[in-house]
Amino acid sequence: MTHALGTVAGAPAPATAIRETRLPNGLRVVTDPMDTVETVSVGVWADVGARHEPADLNGVCHMLEHMAFKGTRRRTALDIAVEMEDVGGHMNAYTSREHTAFYAKMLHQDLPLAVDILADILQHSVFDPEELARERSVVVQEIYQSIDTPDDIVFDHFQATAYGDQPLGRPVLGTVESVERLESDTVGGFQRTHYSPDRLVVAAAGKVDHDALVGLVERHFTALDRRLPATGQGARYTGGEYREPRAVEQAHIVLGFDGVAYEDPDYYASIVLATLLGGGMSSRLFQEVREKRGLAYTVSAFASAYVDGGLFTLYAGTGPEDLAALTPVLCEEINKVRVSVGSDEVARARAQLRAGVLMGQESTSGRCEQLARQILVYGRPISNAEVLEALEAVDAAAVVRVAERLFRTAPTLAALGAIDAMDPLDRLRARL
Amino acid sequence: MTHALGTVAGAPAPATAIRETRLPNGLRVVTDPMDTVETVSVGVWADVGARHEPADLNGVCHMLEHMAFKGTRRRTALDIAVEMEDVGGHMNAYTSREHTAFYAKMLHQDLPLAVDILADILQHSVFDPEELARERSVVVQEIYQSIDTPDDIVFDHFQATAYGDQPLGRPVLGTVESVERLESDTVGGFQRTHYSPDRLVVAAAGKVDHDALVGLVERHFTALDRRLPATGQGARYTGGEYREPRAVEQAHIVLGFDGVAYEDPDYYASIVLATLLGGGMSSRLFQEVREKRGLAYTVSAFASAYVDGGLFTLYAGTGPEDLAALTPVLCEEINKVRVSVGSDEVARARAQLRAGVLMGQESTSGRCEQLARQILVYGRPISNAEVLEALEAVDAAAVVRVAERLFRTAPTLAALGAIDAMDPLDRLRARL
Repeated sequence: MTHALGTVAGAPAPATAIRETRLPNGLRVVTDPMDTVETVSVGVWADVGARHEPADLNGVCHMLEHMAFKGTRRRTALDIAVEMEDVGGHMNAYTSREHTAFYAKMLHQDLPLAVDILADILQHSVFDPEELARERSVVVQEIYQSIDTPDDIVFDHFQATAYGDQPLGRPVLGTVESVERLESDTVGGFQRTHYSPDRLVVAAAGKVDHDALVGLVERHFTALDRRLPATGQGARYTGGEYREPRAVEQAHIVLGFDGVAYEDPDYYASIVLATLLGGGMSSRLFQEVREKRGLAYTVSAFASAYVDGGLFTLYAGTGPEDLAALTPVLCEEINKVRVSVGSDEVARARAQLRAGVLMGQESTSGRCEQLARQILVYGRPISNAEVLEALEAVDAAAVVRVAERLFRTAPTLAALGAIDAMDPLDRLRARL
Repeated sequence: MTHALGTVAGAPAPATAIRETRLPNGLRVVTDPMDTVETVSVGVWADVGARHEPADLNGVCHMLEHMAFKGTRRRTALDIAVEMEDVGGHMNAYTSREHTAFYAKMLHQDLPLAVDILADILQHSVFDPEELARERSVVVQEIYQSIDTPDDIVFDHFQATAYGDQPLGRPVLGTVESVERLESDTVGGFQRTHYSPDRLVVAAAGKVDHDALVGLVERHFTALDRRLPATGQGARYTGGEYREPRAVEQAHIVLGFDGVAYEDPDYYASIVLATLLGGGMSSRLFQEVREKRGLAYTVSAFASAYVDGGLFTLYAGTGPEDLAALTPVLCEEINKVRVSVGSDEVARARAQLRAGVLMGQESTSGRCEQLARQILVYGRPISNAEVLEALEAVDAAAVVRVAERLFRTAPTLAALGAIDAMDPLDRLRARL
């Protein structure tokens, strides 16, 4: 079963040429060169996300991500869009609970332009009040769009229930009320306070020369002040229940438990557990819930990690008539996996994860993002060989141990939609 | 502005080693080898989709796609999932209005296994009635999930309005009623009648040897009968209006026109038009609707082609308070682009599309799918050089000409959600 991957998992992974430079101001530059492509992905990842926001500024990171494209001292919003698209490149950005990222992909000749624009929008945005007023209304639309999408918004409620009124429980987009409170100087002030060079990583993958990129970054990123990083409040998982009946066709059930942080010794065992429980067509949940019983179109399990905690989550969407049958099956599968896991399914989950690592190497944007996140989370690049070795070390006993650890924590239940037939949390807890 | 891409667009594109073989039974095998990767994407694309279904069997193609994973004479559903995931590969499938595809991605050593499984599920599925009963319930869940997602289901209503009660107007998933009517012998019979070898293409991209793949296909695809292909009814665009008020936060507006087919001389001009009108951050709609007016989070335009027609579509999601302002702006932008287009924005749209072509070359799955679809649609592989040359030939005059052609057709309007303030179609038509 492992023959196909033996050479990869057994021997050291092919040497990569990842290089890292720390500039005097603390800004890190990392590159992962690939000589088989003509393009390069480059971006700035910031160790700044929704969990670093004060409650009354919830959504400010995400608004900052939007406003970075709305004009600098040298460029209008239109200039920013046009300059990149003129050369066929594209830029985008995202905000998560722990990070904010601004990135671009383009033909390699245009890397200097991309670095110039990234540096400009991160150092010299003007946060014009009229632009902000319009962008508030765009973000409010984005919030309502999320509210209208049951299998999207249910995860925000799940997060809020898992962490209660802590920063890690708040929505990345903010709320309509908090967004409407954001003013030009709060957004600009948040950037000045939080975007200090030691919380930023410039990463690139693809056709890129490390020294050339360092030179570009030194030339363009000159206006960042070094500040004490404001750390977010530590995460304390609470668990609990959220129910929102809504007149739609389906019920969306998110059932979660306290998970593990990136650097937890059980991290790799937890992702193997998530994979064999609900990661693919051969997984226990897919087979039991969808294939054997036809109870849901979507059913899955996944592990999300933060720097100081994590969530282990099961999700299913189903019709009201199947809902009563669904939750007992979810609980039964949880109880089964706590006591017994086969070495064949562990080997299969490891093979899937190993192949995912190797397939991820084929895309410049995937490699760029992975590298940047490793620097922010672990402080160093993690080689594929190291990841594959850690996966290889996960055996059935480790998976059972982590299942027992995770599933004895207090459950979090978020249920939204056609949920009249849904067991209350107490009844569900009694099954576990 | 074009310097960065000059060498690519001006000179012939790098020679590719695409090879095509037609077996005696009519089955085509095409490969696009890449020597820089360790993986291969392989799949079977069938010239069979929802538009080939009789009305009372609407959804049968999609059900067939599901049932192909539910067991063959040699393999249970679990076997199919386990054998592929044991080696870290993954399989998936999709159905569209014109095509059905079954594909896998894996490390290159496991190609023989993937071809064996693909051949097995496409020739020897058993369509067990009990499995079908469960799968009907899974598909019904999938339909309800789509109904619950406003910015998904609005496009099904748009399609039904654009084509009325023709096959091309019907939903890919079918309806709850049509799906509940599907029986084991109708699904199996549909496969036997429609999956004739001359309507199938086996395509692979990545680390693959053409002759070796041909050998595998010859060995495994032995049970296909050659039949006269049942062609779908020709598409006749009608236009019209669909309104569905729903108690949600946002209104979803799809405004479309009769578009162009793949082989239409205006095809490339229509995609340049879609790109400059609503394809990126520098596009007219993004700038006018989102950046200048803050009227929507999502606004876009795109051209969809079929073998004998197409649709040109504008989409926006907005709140009820901005809805009255939104549709006049959409109409105004349509009217503007019919009379004047700048050569700079045409060059930018071409640069974006060119870069998209080149970036698409980096992924095995993207190259595999593109190649298979070219064989089905054009009967031959289309080189990048040919695509780039066709794009290069599109000038501002061609874009204005296609805009005038498209926007004088009868509009199709689908509006769903918080649409009380929405102009009726007549009023909207008066603005165009």
